[in-house]
Amino acid sequence: MSTTPIDAKLDLVLKRELAVPVDLVWRGLTEPELVKQWFCPKPWQTTECRIDLRPGGEFYTNMQGPNGEVHAGASCFLEIVPQERLVWTTSLLPGYRPKSPLSADSGSCENIAFTCVITLKVIEGGTEYVAHVMHSTPDQMKAHQEMGFHEGWGTTITQLEELLKQEKA
Amino acid sequence: MSTTPIDAKLDLVLKRELAVPVDLVWRGLTEPELVKQWFCPKPWQTTECRIDLRPGGEFYTNMQGPNGEVHAGASCFLEIVPQERLVWTTSLLPGYRPKSPLSADSGSCENIAFTCVITLKVIEGGTEYVAHVMHSTPDQMKAHQEMGFHEGWGTTITQLEELLKQEKA
Repeated sequence: MSTTPIDAKLDLVLKRELAVPVDLVWRGLTEPELVKQWFCPKPWQTTECRIDLRPGGEFYTNMQGPNGEVHAGASCFLEIVPQERLVWTTSLLPGYRPKSPLSADSGSCENIAFTCVITLKVIEGGTEYVAHVMHSTPDQMKAHQEMGFHEGWGTTITQLEELLKQEKA
Repeated sequence: MSTTPIDAKLDLVLKRELAVPVDLVWRGLTEPELVKQWFCPKPWQTTECRIDLRPGGEFYTNMQGPNGEVHAGASCFLEIVPQERLVWTTSLLPGYRPKSPLSADSGSCENIAFTCVITLKVIEGGTEYVAHVMHSTPDQMKAHQEMGFHEGWGTTITQLEELLKQEKA
């Protein structure tokens, strides 16, 4: 396991306390049928999700917007420590193959390369969730930020928490 | 562990039988003081090498040519199975951070993104060494091939074998 320090010029971080036990949060992050219910901000929908939960394994999602927009793509899992740590990157395809060089246009989310390190910690009353999202350049980080990183991911994490509270009930 | 099938349009493969025991081959691949002695074809020299042998760890080499050329850079280890399998990629920096987008000029080796999967197997009289080198596009693969992949890597593996025979003696 390798812990990378946060670089304020290159990284985005989302930290939340979820009123849900850590085993349930882990399930929400790694079971395709659950991921499909919270992974993009409504009214967008995750219509497909495939998860091969091992280093080098596939993390595929197909997201569809209310006007027929489609964002689909496969990322690659790097580290899996159940209930503690989940790492995946959009820089590699499943099986660790490098993804094609990005186009100069970074206005679309397919053109933003990032690695996401999710860390979970048991706290009083639930689970602390931290997403540390690393980019290659300040421009890539800013593009991701301006695309609505905090609002979008924040919304989806709220959706995750609501979903898991129902699962728990 | 994830085994990626070879794609002839995207991948380069080098397979060799080395007359050296597998534990020694593993040391040759992972100990900086040994790597420095064989990692680039002479008269080039590897003047620095740092290896942090864990997923997400650093694989840094500084290679210098006879006319003062310098190729230096850090890659990222992905999988380490002692004496069996070693995976690293130039698409990520240590700590899994995506590397900056490549420039359009793919004529320099810094501009070739690849993931290398080295597999070792004990055979009669020594060790089978297979390097499976994956690229993102046929152009990237061809650029690597035309840069002299087979000659260059072939030469270095011969250098590795010669070095390890001396270590063994």
